[in-house]
Order: sequence, then structure tokens, then C-alpha cells
Amino acid sequence: MSELWSNLSCGALGLKVEFDEAVELAAEFGFAAVEADLGYLAGLPQDQLATAGKRLGERGLRWGPAGLPVDLTADAARFASQLAELPGKVAILQAAGVDRTGTWIRPMHNELTYRRNFARYTERIALVDEILRGGNLRFGLEYVGPKTFWSTELYPFVHTLRETRELIAATGSKNVGIVLDTYHWYTSAETPDDLRSLRADEVVAVDVNDAHADRERDEQMDLDRCLPGTTGTIDVAGFLGALRDIGYDGPVKVEPFSKELKGLPAREVVEKTAASLKAVL
Amino acid sequence: MSELWSNLSCGALGLKVEFDEAVELAAEFGFAAVEADLGYLAGLPQDQLATAGKRLGERGLRWGPAGLPVDLTADAARFASQLAELPGKVAILQAAGVDRTGTWIRPMHNELTYRRNFARYTERIALVDEILRGGNLRFGLEYVGPKTFWSTELYPFVHTLRETRELIAATGSKNVGIVLDTYHWYTSAETPDDLRSLRADEVVAVDVNDAHADRERDEQMDLDRCLPGTTGTIDVAGFLGALRDIGYDGPVKVEPFSKELKGLPAREVVEKTAASLKAVL
Amino acid sequence: MSELWSNLSCGALGLKVEFDEAVELAAEFGFAAVEADLGYLAGLPQDQLATAGKRLGERGLRWGPAGLPVDLTADAARFASQLAELPGKVAILQAAGVDRTGTWIRPMHNELTYRRNFARYTERIALVDEILRGGNLRFGLEYVGPKTFWSTELYPFVHTLRETRELIAATGSKNVGIVLDTYHWYTSAETPDDLRSLRADEVVAVDVNDAHADRERDEQMDLDRCLPGTTGTIDVAGFLGALRDIGYDGPVKVEPFSKELKGLPAREVVEKTAASLKAVL
Amino acid sequence: MSELWSNLSCGALGLKVEFDEAVELAAEFGFAAVEADLGYLAGLPQDQLATAGKRLGERGLRWGPAGLPVDLTADAARFASQLAELPGKVAILQAAGVDRTGTWIRPMHNELTYRRNFARYTERIALVDEILRGGNLRFGLEYVGPKTFWSTELYPFVHTLRETRELIAATGSKNVGIVLDTYHWYTSAETPDDLRSLRADEVVAVDVNDAHADRERDEQMDLDRCLPGTTGTIDVAGFLGALRDIGYDGPVKVEPFSKELKGLPAREVVEKTAASLKAVL
Repeated sequence: MSELWSNLSCGALGLKVEFDEAVELAAEFGFAAVEADLGYLAGLPQDQLATAGKRLGERGLRWGPAGLPVDLTADAARFASQLAELPGKVAILQAAGVDRTGTWIRPMHNELTYRRNFARYTERIALVDEILRGGNLRFGLEYVGPKTFWSTELYPFVHTLRETRELIAATGSKNVGIVLDTYHWYTSAETPDDLRSLRADEVVAVDVNDAHADRERDEQMDLDRCLPGTTGTIDVAGFLGALRDIGYDGPVKVEPFSKELKGLPAREVVEKTAASLKAVL
Repeated sequence: MSELWSNLSCGALGLKVEFDEAVELAAEFGFAAVEADLGYLAGLPQDQLATAGKRLGERGLRWGPAGLPVDLTADAARFASQLAELPGKVAILQAAGVDRTGTWIRPMHNELTYRRNFARYTERIALVDEILRGGNLRFGLEYVGPKTFWSTELYPFVHTLRETRELIAATGSKNVGIVLDTYHWYTSAETPDDLRSLRADEVVAVDVNDAHADRERDEQMDLDRCLPGTTGTIDVAGFLGALRDIGYDGPVKVEPFSKELKGLPAREVVEKTAASLKAVL
Repeated sequence: MSELWSNLSCGALGLKVEFDEAVELAAEFGFAAVEADLGYLAGLPQDQLATAGKRLGERGLRWGPAGLPVDLTADAARFASQLAELPGKVAILQAAGVDRTGTWIRPMHNELTYRRNFARYTERIALVDEILRGGNLRFGLEYVGPKTFWSTELYPFVHTLRETRELIAATGSKNVGIVLDTYHWYTSAETPDDLRSLRADEVVAVDVNDAHADRERDEQMDLDRCLPGTTGTIDVAGFLGALRDIGYDGPVKVEPFSKELKGLPAREVVEKTAASLKAVL
Repeated sequence: MSELWSNLSCGALGLKVEFDEAVELAAEFGFAAVEADLGYLAGLPQDQLATAGKRLGERGLRWGPAGLPVDLTADAARFASQLAELPGKVAILQAAGVDRTGTWIRPMHNELTYRRNFARYTERIALVDEILRGGNLRFGLEYVGPKTFWSTELYPFVHTLRETRELIAATGSKNVGIVLDTYHWYTSAETPDDLRSLRADEVVAVDVNDAHADRERDEQMDLDRCLPGTTGTIDVAGFLGALRDIGYDGPVKVEPFSKELKGLPAREVVEKTAASLKAVL
């Protein structure tokens, strides 16, 4: 049976907590996974990486995806240096048992045309992917849908599922997949059927969030969302139903950029998040 | 010496006048050219087409560009039928002495991604161009700049000079060039130096208009403009100076989509247009 | 159960026979289908098209694919006129009950670079496909593999399965698929696993042929092949096994361009073809 | 006046000589430039780099292009590490006064399709170029024309002037240009008019060689050429005339891969090369 598993990303909740505390919170509030923390893992002695993964298992947890330690939009010198350091970081993630990573696509540019930006992303993704693949790490790409974001620079760029698949196809790699987020799926006016056109192995990770009820689709802001299922603006059930239909069995996390949660104690934020996630999964 | 020559397009002024009247108005108000009218020419006997061009010359006038009688965005069956009729129409224009034609690029689409739309435009332009070229007709493409237009559908498309050059390069034809309009140049935040990067033979035709002084660049509407030089919002002098620098010696027309002109008698509209054009040329 | 069905194409055997004779031969030698003959159908009164399909059914036969009546490499004027006539021809095929058509990709060009040729094919295919799709006709594209062919002009073009999928993806249409031929699959050094990467609905039609045993892969000539299974040079069993694995249930025909068959009576050619096909299916 | 200046590249002549000896040979045989040697320069103390350039000037010599210290076809990890080291190397070249560098395009691939390879080259070139540009180094790309080379793998790639310009256009950088070689110009069946379609600033460096008189154009081997002007097979005069017409004023070197020169003393090889170059320049 296909199963979605909840993943706690404290970073996505705006919380700055140590990794150990994140594990405690994940365990206490019933998450199935905790986001892989490369900074934490890089601080461990090489021979304790596997142990770190095992200890997580003993708490009933597994690794959620790690953030990609490469900025795909960096200038050439910085991209080169991050890419040159990637093999070492991938070795750490692999030794710990992490199996996926991801980043997002900036949906506009003031200097690069769509085509030039597409060519740039294509090969930068391919370069990163070749190294990730060597460490058995899936590579997920998240598109960002709000029009209030992609329309702010001269050259709008990839901001829909269809374009993301074109970009992935251009890399020629089956190891690259999609990070879906209800929020972007909703702001790009996509449907459950659009999701049903995917194969399960095209999806690397999933985010669920809700949108403000008093705003039109085209007025939603990228960094001002709501906990999933709380406003009913986004059809989370239709979204998750479609993912179950195609057999997706990966992580699901919350990334609400919510003003209401801001300033609350970490424990309370995680508790509310867990409750909202439980209600929709 | 490079010379810009004023071209009267009654259609671009929202006027519905017979071709003969257009010629009278052009002559009376000192235009150097009158827009080629395919409908009128197609109604003439074949052996009078050359005569029509000569008679124009006797009035001190020449042909401005003809509108392209093909809709590049039509469905396949309609595009096919328009393309199949194009050779006959090109023969008429060529016999009359017309030497250029043009159309515009729709800067967004709700179904076609940027890349799919780009591929579509590329070969449709190439097909049209091959037939135009056979009749010694230059083919000009106009990009449309207002953000209030290109941002209204899910997939924004070509709306800048840089993208238009990419599109033309993709067709591989030196016969395809650009139709520049101060209005789109302004709304896309382009500069005189951007124009100076062009070779003169890349420019097929030029439009000059002004924008509303009480609106921001991103608020300007495509179909609500002002006569050139009347509000000072657009740097027409810088625009035309750059075109003179590169040696452009083609037609210049006005296409104001102006609400103030609406409903005025044709003679008055042409008079005001001529005056505004004279002031900036 | 997935089932391959044999299709008699007299044209592919180099035979010039009337349609009625083709039907007799197909029935006599146990074919499941006979190639749709647009010339024949276009000569029938409109109200007998459905009848023609029914009569075929009474002989235990069905329609094989029709050849595409559009030359994708034609000059613009000829392409336009063929495309303009396509809707009428599609209506005829649809009325008769034909459900698929196909053509091949010319694998090189002396003037058009790979990219320019790719852009040309992409939109020409999309234009044709939009009309075919309207008549419920699948559109199959055959790549041509022999190096002795694709290497003969300055710009080699699509000649492998992988490139054909890229081309189809660029059209954005799920109605466009592949015509596979053992001969091209062999000359492009492809494997059963390459075929297993396809979904059944990506394959529109299949050809089986064999290659000369005394020539290297790169020496095989496009127009000098052998009946399937007769030399053992091509792994027809592996090819058809892979197609069965993915569930392909469409037509299979022979197109041997064989010098040995040349000049033989039609009946004898069809008999030999039927026997060779029976032996491998 | 436009002026071509002769450049001695001992490496291109198959000679392994120390840099100091190369300078002696260049001066003795009247070359205007000597190929920049990154290995030599990297061994100098930082504060002697400018001096090295000045000493060259005192001998009446200038710097020819340096070879690019990045393999554009390397695997991702190696490419990353070479790219990460590039800024330091560029600083060395810039300090010494070198102003251009170059590499060649591998004209085929067994795994990457034309389009995938094009996307890969595009962004790898753009990444390298961004760093070179920061050090005021022009970046030249050489296409390789012999059919006996580009036809040897499954996917032929860029091997003509036209394709090279497409590739450079895709990078969007005016700092990237072309390295022309009579040998590739000849094997790709190009003409003086093809060269006249270039702007001078599109050409970064030039090689002149001749081809074997007893072989057809398509039989010439990439690594078996002749000294320029020695067989009369290639129209060197037409080639250099066209470059003078457009105003090219950069380096010209010889890279004969000649079996006859193999094994001869360095001095003799350079002498013969100088004589052949003098005869054609």
C-alpha cells in the first residue's frame, strides 16, 4: 500500500532549534521523519554517521530530505566552489542514510531570458544531479507558483508543473524529480488530474499548506500562507488523493510561512503543525 | 544619409476609410508613405497593380508595410488555409511594389508553455517567411511590452527586444526582422543602447507613441496610449536618435489607441497625428 | 492479453496492386490487417466509406495504418497546400474507420542544422497532429537508423529512439507516437531494454525486417534489407518480446526493400512475406 | 589596418620544449607571438607575472592565446574542481597580460543526444566564460570538421561554423567567440563568404593548415594534416582574404599534426612551420 509519511522540518516552520531538539519534537508529536540536517551531520565524526541514522530509527523516525547545499542561481565562481564541495557532502548524507535532497526554482529573472535561464538551470541541475546520483540521493525540484512573485521581474520563469517536467526532461536524468507543494499547485491553477498524469517515481517530496481565504488566487503571497486544511482554500484532499492514486509513498511536510506562528515557542508551533498535518493526511 | 519616413496607417489610428481617402489624407498632411492595403489591392485587376504603385509615387508617396494576412496563433486548420493562400497574396503585394509586411507576437498563453509556444512561433514564422521571401517582402515582428498584458495568462511569452531577437535567430532567416514601438520599448524598460546593439537591417518598421504621464511603467495599458511626444513620458528623442545612429532608414508610424481621438472626424485625427509625428521626427 | 497483429502493406513490399487485390492477398495468406489506402478511399462515394471498413471486417481483416499524405520536408508552399488538404483526407480516413497514420523522419540535411531542423519538424508535426487528432487518428513517427544514410549530408538528424522521443516530447502531444522498425533499432545499436523503457501507448506501429549477415552494423543500407528472421542478424525475438512485455497490441508489418523479391509475382512476394512474419510472431 | 599576427604554439607542433626555448625559437624565426603557457606562468612568483609579459615584449613578441585549463566534457566532479580552480588561473593569466584563451568542441558523443550535449556545452561554456570575462580574457571555441571524426559515434555534434554560432548565441555572451581553422573550414565545405558573414570580434583565434592532396574531403583525418599552403588542397588565400575583409586582427598559428614533422628536431620543425606560415600570410 502506498503511504505518505509526515516529515518535520523545523527550518520550514521558521524555527531555529538544534538537531537533537528537532528529533525530540518529531518523536513527541508523532512525525514519521525529521528533515536531514547537513550542518549537524557534517559536525559528526565520519564513523558516527551511520549511527546517527540508526539512532533515528530507534526513535521510530527516518530521514526526511536534506536541503541542497548548492545555490543554482549563484554566480559562476560561487557555484563552482559549492559544486566542488558537493561530493564530500553527498558522502556524508549517504553515510548517514539520507536518500533525497531538494531545492526550488526561482520563477523569474531580470537579466536572463526564459530560454537562457532554462539552459542555465538545465546543465546546473545535471551537474548537481550527477554527483547526487553517485551517492544514491534523489534530487527534487520545487516550482514556485504565486503570480505576485513570478511577475515581479522582466523575465518570468518556470512556475508550473508542466514547465518543471520540461526542465527535468531537458536534463535527461531519471534521478531528478519534483517537489510538489499544494500552495504552488493551487496558485498555478492545477488540478488533481494534473497530478494523476505523473508517475509516482517522478515525485521526490511533497509540501502541504493552505492559502488565505480572503485573497484571490493571483493575490496570494509566497511567504504568507496558512497551516494545511485550516482555511479550506486549497483542496488538500483532492491533492493528496491524487498522489495516493498514483502510488506516491514519500515524505509530506508543512512549510506555512505563517505570521500567526511567528514568535510562538517551538513546541507550540510543532504541536499545531502536527495537528494540522494529522487532520489532512 | 539615413532617413526615417513617416507612414500613415489609418487602421492603426482606428479609422475606417477607403484606400483612396487614405491616400488623399496622407498627401494633404505631408506623410511620406501610406500603409499598403491588401484588401484594396486584391480588388484590382492584376494588370493595374503596378499602376497603383506608380500613382502613389506621383502623389509623392510610397508604400508603408502591409499587415500580414496570416494569424500566427490560429488553430492548425485555419493557419494551414491562410498559409496556403499566402503565395497568391504575396504575388499581389509584390506586383504593386510593396516591400515589407509585419505582425505582432502575442506575449502570453494559457495553455502553451514558453518553450512550446516558442517552437510554435519559430516554425510558423519560418513557413510564412519562406513565402514572403520568395516575393521580396521583408517580415517584421513586433513584441508587445505592457506587463498589464503579458502577465494576464499562465505562461508569459516573448515581450522584450532580447527575446524577439532570440526568436528571429531561431528561424535562421535574415529576412525576418523587428518592428520596434517606443511604447513596448518603454514598457519593457529598454534603453537607447539596447537599440544601438541592432544592425539597421534588423529593423523592418518603427512605431512611435507616448504613454500616460500619471501611470507607472508597469501600469500602462496596451490599448490606451498617447500621441508621440505629447506627454513626455517616453524618451522618443533618445529612441529615434539611436535608430539614426545605427542607420535605420525605414517607415515610422503612429498607433496610439487613444481614447481622445476616438470619435473625431478622420481628417482631424490624421491632422493631429501628422503634427505629433512632425514634432518628434 | 497483448496481441500483435500482422498487417499487409503491398506498398512496403514494392508491389503495385489494386486495393481489392491487396485485400484478397491479405485474406488468403492470413494477415490480420491491410494497410489503409487513402487513394482508394478517396475514390469512394462518401456514404460508402463506412461500408468499406465493414466489408474488411467481414473478411476477418482490419485497417492497418495509412501513410501520411503530408511531406514534412516540403517547401513552405507545398507543405501549406498539403496541410490545407489534410482535414478533408482525415475525414475520409475517419469515416472508413482508420485509426492511425505515420511517416518517417529524414535523418540528415545539407542546409538545416540539427537545431533548426528540430524546430521545423516540431511545429510541422504539431500542425499535422492537431488535424489528425481531430479525426481520432494516432500519428506515428519512424526514425531511420543506418549510418550509411544519416552520415551522407552535413547535418545528421534524428536517427535513434532517444532522439525521436525528444522530438515527440517537444510537440507536447500525447497523440504522437513512434513507429518502430527492427532494422533501425538494430542499426542504431538499441536493445530490448531500450524498448522496455517505453509505454505501450507510445508505440503506434511496428515493422520487422532482417539485415544482411555479411555486413557490419554500420555498413547496412537503408534500402537493402531481408525478410524478418531470415538471416538471424537482428534479434527479432528480443525485439518482439520486449514489445509484448510492455503490452504493445498494434500492427506489425514487413518492409524489406529486398532485391530478391524484386520482380517476383505479387502472390509469391506476399506468400514469402506471410511465412517470414508467421515464423517470428 | 587589420593585421594578422603569427603565433608559435610548440604544443600544436607536437614539440615538448620549455617555455624559454619556445621564446627563443619564436624570436629566431620571426613569429609575432608565442602561445601563453599557464604551467610556466603558474610556477612564477606572483610579482614576476607582469615582468614575464614585459620581457616578451622586449623580444618583440606578444602573448598568443592560452589553452583553457578546463575540460568541458569532464564528469561533473572533475569539471567542478577544474572550474573552482579557474579563478586563480585566470588571475595568473591576467597578471601576465594574456588576453585570450580557447578550447575545442568534441563533435560527437555515444551517450548524449545532440540536444542534451548542446545544453551541456551551453551552460558549461557560460560558467567558464563568466570567470574568464572577469579576467578580461576572450574565450574562443574551435569546431572540428572531419567527417572521419564526427561520424564515429552515435550522436554527431557541432562540427560546422553555423552550429558553433548557434552554440555561442545560446550562451548569451559576447565574450565567447570562434577559433577558426582552415582544416575544419575545408572539411565542413565552407566558403570565404561564410567567413564574410562574421564580424571581426566574433573571431578569437585562427589556425591554418593544409590537407592531403590525395584524399577526398570526407576522407581527411583530423590528426593527419599538412603544413599550410604545401599541398594546395585548401584555399588558404581565400580563407585569409575573407578574414582580412572583415578586419580580423588576431593571432594565426599552425597545428599540422603532421607525420612528416614527427621526430624532427624542434628547431627544424619550427623553421619549416615559420616558412610555411610566412608563405601564406
